[in-house]
Amino acid sequence: MNNKLEEYYKIQKELNAYRYAMNIISWDAETEAPKMSHSYRGEQIAILSEKTLECKLSEKRQSIVNELFENRDQLSDTERRMIEISKKELDQTLKIPTEEQVEYSKLISDSQNVWTDAFHNDDYPAFKDSLAKIIETQQKFMKYRETEEIKGYNVLLDDFEEGMTIDDYENFFGTLKRDLVPFVKEVLSKGNENRPSIDGIKFSVEKQKEFCDYLMDVFAFDRDRGLIKESVHPFTWGQSTDDIRFTVKYLDDLLPSAIYSAAHELGHALYEQQIDPKYNGTNLGSGVSSGIHEAQSRFYENNIARSRIFLETHYPKLQELYSEELTDITAEDFYMICNEAKADFIRIEADELTYCLHIMVRYEIEKLLFSGGVNIEELPTVWNNMMEEYLGITPKSNSEGILQDIHWSCGLFGYFPTYALGSAIACQIDNTMRKEIDVDKIIASGNLTEINLWLADKFHQHGSLKTPNQLLIEVTGEKLNPKYYVEYLIEKYTNLYFR
Amino acid sequence: MNNKLEEYYKIQKELNAYRYAMNIISWDAETEAPKMSHSYRGEQIAILSEKTLECKLSEKRQSIVNELFENRDQLSDTERRMIEISKKELDQTLKIPTEEQVEYSKLISDSQNVWTDAFHNDDYPAFKDSLAKIIETQQKFMKYRETEEIKGYNVLLDDFEEGMTIDDYENFFGTLKRDLVPFVKEVLSKGNENRPSIDGIKFSVEKQKEFCDYLMDVFAFDRDRGLIKESVHPFTWGQSTDDIRFTVKYLDDLLPSAIYSAAHELGHALYEQQIDPKYNGTNLGSGVSSGIHEAQSRFYENNIARSRIFLETHYPKLQELYSEELTDITAEDFYMICNEAKADFIRIEADELTYCLHIMVRYEIEKLLFSGGVNIEELPTVWNNMMEEYLGITPKSNSEGILQDIHWSCGLFGYFPTYALGSAIACQIDNTMRKEIDVDKIIASGNLTEINLWLADKFHQHGSLKTPNQLLIEVTGEKLNPKYYVEYLIEKYTNLYFR
Repeated sequence: MNNKLEEYYKIQKELNAYRYAMNIISWDAETEAPKMSHSYRGEQIAILSEKTLECKLSEKRQSIVNELFENRDQLSDTERRMIEISKKELDQTLKIPTEEQVEYSKLISDSQNVWTDAFHNDDYPAFKDSLAKIIETQQKFMKYRETEEIKGYNVLLDDFEEGMTIDDYENFFGTLKRDLVPFVKEVLSKGNENRPSIDGIKFSVEKQKEFCDYLMDVFAFDRDRGLIKESVHPFTWGQSTDDIRFTVKYLDDLLPSAIYSAAHELGHALYEQQIDPKYNGTNLGSGVSSGIHEAQSRFYENNIARSRIFLETHYPKLQELYSEELTDITAEDFYMICNEAKADFIRIEADELTYCLHIMVRYEIEKLLFSGGVNIEELPTVWNNMMEEYLGITPKSNSEGILQDIHWSCGLFGYFPTYALGSAIACQIDNTMRKEIDVDKIIASGNLTEINLWLADKFHQHGSLKTPNQLLIEVTGEKLNPKYYVEYLIEKYTNLYFR
Repeated sequence: MNNKLEEYYKIQKELNAYRYAMNIISWDAETEAPKMSHSYRGEQIAILSEKTLECKLSEKRQSIVNELFENRDQLSDTERRMIEISKKELDQTLKIPTEEQVEYSKLISDSQNVWTDAFHNDDYPAFKDSLAKIIETQQKFMKYRETEEIKGYNVLLDDFEEGMTIDDYENFFGTLKRDLVPFVKEVLSKGNENRPSIDGIKFSVEKQKEFCDYLMDVFAFDRDRGLIKESVHPFTWGQSTDDIRFTVKYLDDLLPSAIYSAAHELGHALYEQQIDPKYNGTNLGSGVSSGIHEAQSRFYENNIARSRIFLETHYPKLQELYSEELTDITAEDFYMICNEAKADFIRIEADELTYCLHIMVRYEIEKLLFSGGVNIEELPTVWNNMMEEYLGITPKSNSEGILQDIHWSCGLFGYFPTYALGSAIACQIDNTMRKEIDVDKIIASGNLTEINLWLADKFHQHGSLKTPNQLLIEVTGEKLNPKYYVEYLIEKYTNLYFR
């Protein structure tokens, strides 16, 4: 067994070196590579991907993983989890015939171009055939990939959040529909007239960068083991615990956008920086699931950085940077500005209160698509009706409706729901954390180290060793429970809009 | 044959993908990777290097390259040159036993650390044993690598400048010793008192960046196919003709330093950008040799950007940026400042006139080392005596003498001479170019495109297709001839110091 394990580690290291190379290449591509470098890079990535697949699916690796899996009761907990993850991934990949996988990759690559054009031309009919083909293929793949325990749309849900099923999501979104939607409507009906505003003020990008740099210290991000950079879409990028990077996008007319994208990505980055370094280079060396990852980013973004106490503590620094621009805006004003709720069509611009309802629309539609309960032709209407039902507004075009996200054109189904999961888990964690440490006092101290350490201890250090459910139950005493999320939102927004 | 060629290309593409990955990783490491990322990166590079070597030395590749080489008369010129280069490299690698190569890599890696400490502690005795071991190993490897045509120190010279021999360098440095050294002494004896100076003035780094950005347009660098960035040591980095990057170092008390490192790297970068894209991904897809590459960078740096006409044309832009700092400095003053000659100990800070004499010291010592004509113990004295002989100054410490360069601790012997070669070839090219196009008029126009195109036509487009000698003879009508260099320097510095 020890011999087999050694062979397994040797191959994993090789796979990891390819992954490292491709990750650096994509970091470079997203953050600075020159415009015309695209096509040459594509050729190199194709070759490296081929080498990766060769190595991953080699008969040798298959036999090692299978043998270790069969004898997994002789392995330590850590080794067993590694092998289980490798085995599951291997089986899932092998179940899809190679030629169908290749054909699908081509379809996805084409569909993204089709979507881009359709989005810019507000032309849903131009995209619908691609979408239909993707769904058809995903349905075929789902059949291949089904196991005793996981069937249908659950296969896709499990890809992004191990263990989550339609039943779990029904309970989750059902609660939101019942307890949150009516409250949201009340808030939205109040409107934002006569509330403080910074609309129309320009905020220099240089100073926004300075403030985000300042936030890195507030969040106790380790600069020797990571960095901040700029990109078109903010993201976090992890390699090992010694190299975690994130990006921010700066817009001179949207000050809160940079602040909250920095706080959000810092949450992801802290998770990755605080994993036990012994997992570096293994398949346990990154966050366990989309939902748990998004919980960290949403926790730092919303529960921490959008709180009154956080803004009271750090607004003076912002006012120091923008002494002219913010002269008439108090900390309380700024708190209200950063927490304004409004009905909007665009998910990525949605506020903390309405965000999950945007996700609910996408989840409901995915469910219909994979149960055959909706025709591709009717999607725009279905979308618009749901927007009306949950948010009280109807998109005027498909580009601000059904076409607004790139995800489906990339074949990403089962992913959207984890976005809402993240915010809900964040509130469940927040609830437990406040019983154990004085969160507000730590926030007011200006340095989040103690919060980081609590999260490191309970969640981060474990990397992918424990499943999302295991983590939640061990730390909070129960599986996902949406009530903490609903209570948090209702309390916060009652205070903001009805007092 | 066509089948074999296809197999050859397939393997080369794989090697090229590894090279691409490792190049991006090193670009990242040199320009932004966080401090602590070092050791994890090292492990990944080790694995990728191993995969590269496996692929490069595979029996399959060996047999393909050998078969193609034996039948090279049936190949096109381009194919033949590719195979000749691959064959030469393969033979040279295979001649050194693997275990000795591994041991040497370890020695080199250790020696760099030993050198770093010795340099900082001004402690030559601490370094001399490492140096002795490196030279001993290089001598052993030289024996392995000798061929019918290339023997002794020529093996190392040929590594960096295909076809150059001790005889060629004797002729080259002999001319400098005879015709240049006495002139340099005359110039240095004039001193720089009462000449214009910007010593003590601070120049904001932001504006230096702005000026370097402006230079990119003057040099007609294609921004869609490359970029500028900052790093501790300026360098140029090439991937394909669609992705050529370079870096500059900015010091607020040394304005000309950033300007001339930008001009220098732009020379390297233009060479790489102007190679025929059909060579991308092959072993003909980069500059042919160190000497020819350095000729491009020195041409743009010295012959172009240090010329009176260039500074007359672009000094107004600099003065616009630094209106206060440069208010009392005329364009002619600035021309004199950028061309000040002085005896200095440090090679990398040397001016255009004395630079080659620093190189001569290193060449003479390497020659002695590989002919056994000097004892390691005596090197500091030999160095200091040569400095006295050529430049009239004696280093006061070994850190500003024999220990100043990292090169020898990396096993780089035969490399230094190409630095002087570059400046000399630049002048030989300059001499031919001026017979065919109106160089000064193009410089005065503010845009160097026509000069770029001339160089693209004569040199750049060919990549590594033609040998350095072939290129020089085809374009200038003769092999390297140092007289153009000596004449250029004497005319320029007579004008600067004796008129």
